[in-house]
Amino acid sequence: MHSFLMIGQSNMAGRGFLHEVTPIYNEKIHMLRNGRWQMMVEPINYDRPVSGVSLAASFADTWSQENSEDTIGLIPCAEGGSTLDEWAVDGPLFKHAVSEARFAMEGSILTGILWHQGESDSSNGNYKDYYQKLLTIIEALRKELNAPTVPLIIGGLGDYLGKKGFGTYATEHELINQELERFASEQDNCYFVTAAGLTANPDGIHLDAASQRIFGLRYYEAYAMLDHVTAPLEDEEKRSQSIKQVHTAAEKLYLASMDFALGKITYEEFNARMVQINSK
Amino acid sequence: MHSFLMIGQSNMAGRGFLHEVTPIYNEKIHMLRNGRWQMMVEPINYDRPVSGVSLAASFADTWSQENSEDTIGLIPCAEGGSTLDEWAVDGPLFKHAVSEARFAMEGSILTGILWHQGESDSSNGNYKDYYQKLLTIIEALRKELNAPTVPLIIGGLGDYLGKKGFGTYATEHELINQELERFASEQDNCYFVTAAGLTANPDGIHLDAASQRIFGLRYYEAYAMLDHVTAPLEDEEKRSQSIKQVHTAAEKLYLASMDFALGKITYEEFNARMVQINSK
Repeated sequence: MHSFLMIGQSNMAGRGFLHEVTPIYNEKIHMLRNGRWQMMVEPINYDRPVSGVSLAASFADTWSQENSEDTIGLIPCAEGGSTLDEWAVDGPLFKHAVSEARFAMEGSILTGILWHQGESDSSNGNYKDYYQKLLTIIEALRKELNAPTVPLIIGGLGDYLGKKGFGTYATEHELINQELERFASEQDNCYFVTAAGLTANPDGIHLDAASQRIFGLRYYEAYAMLDHVTAPLEDEEKRSQSIKQVHTAAEKLYLASMDFALGKITYEEFNARMVQINSK
Repeated sequence: MHSFLMIGQSNMAGRGFLHEVTPIYNEKIHMLRNGRWQMMVEPINYDRPVSGVSLAASFADTWSQENSEDTIGLIPCAEGGSTLDEWAVDGPLFKHAVSEARFAMEGSILTGILWHQGESDSSNGNYKDYYQKLLTIIEALRKELNAPTVPLIIGGLGDYLGKKGFGTYATEHELINQELERFASEQDNCYFVTAAGLTANPDGIHLDAASQRIFGLRYYEAYAMLDHVTAPLEDEEKRSQSIKQVHTAAEKLYLASMDFALGKITYEEFNARMVQINSK
């Protein structure tokens, strides 16, 4: 299994509304829970009760289509509202992410690091030492995980910031974006992904579900091409919406079990679905 | 802060339907996420997308009422469907629970261990070596966490098992219950809590939300009295339903922020609620 570490703040954790997009069920995509792997179901990164669609699901689904012989595992460690200082190497977020990644690496190869953070630093001139602080964190992370050359994919902040709702106060997002882009262009094995054109929930700070699906494709493009993604991709909207609707027996079994556990179907209906699945 | 470790399988994680009970919001109750504390909101133990109400919330709320000067922290490490063998000391569930507890213990005193497991061992004669395997796990856990005398509260399995739905196959639940009760009576600092009379979701295996609220009161009773709870408590149903409905400013702020992030209220409505909260 190839694993990817998800770190940063809420837009890496994901706040897209689940009901706004087609769910992704793919038995070849796993997520870490309690130190073990299980099939991915969104929300992947349950840091808050408002967690929802993140970029990781469409990233992983695209990876899975391009690497159909293999499986992918997601390591969710993003924390809503966290500042860069809260990711300092002696703090709990950094230490916990290292700890989770080590559990994951007992049964997988760490293949990429996905970073999205900066909204909480888009004020008070925090951009001035953002680069140096991020460098310290990334260097320590690479050392702790023995991952000196694993690709690090860094997403930019949304254009919509600084305008309304909880985004109002993120007035220096363009300055943070400059630092993120400069970091990716100067540091080895690091690639920048633009958030240009992506849109937010009504709260004005969190990427909406459709944008997260698109952002995941852009992150994948940067990872696969080992290059920066500085503009929207061709066909990204259409591609982000073409989610597989035909499921394997294992996926159908998972969905039937979930529906029964949630009281949505009776045991008789569950058994009927089992018979149907097994007869195929 | 006083912290409690939650370990076991799905009925410790919690599968009660959230919409069936009054939610518990109490700023003095925290839960561990990403190695840090945040205000508790159910589901606490998000091991599966079907996670819901567990016994931990009403346990913590009762603890909080009885210890109003202090705060309580919950460490969610239960894993749905896990067998006792999967909790072996060299496996990921055990190691991860130890790791999470250590993050918690950097800012809290480990004050209790809450265990509920056994449905996945209620068949194939697994009860025969359940006691010895559990003893090995608990002794190792106490040693790893330097917690030789911290109370361990062990809940029994539901009477409803072995009858319908996913519970059909748990035919030896009474034999497991005997082992759990014997373990608690013979081991020091260990107390048994009966599940007598509690009821299940339509799936026939998971305690329903109302029963989880009651079970939490029984767990608290065992913890507070340092004694076994072998029969339902007087007034437990009524007490389990009397959830505090008047909230502090911090709780109101949390709820307003959540509603806004979920798109349930506009920014104007959010701001109006802020004004109202701050004027009190």
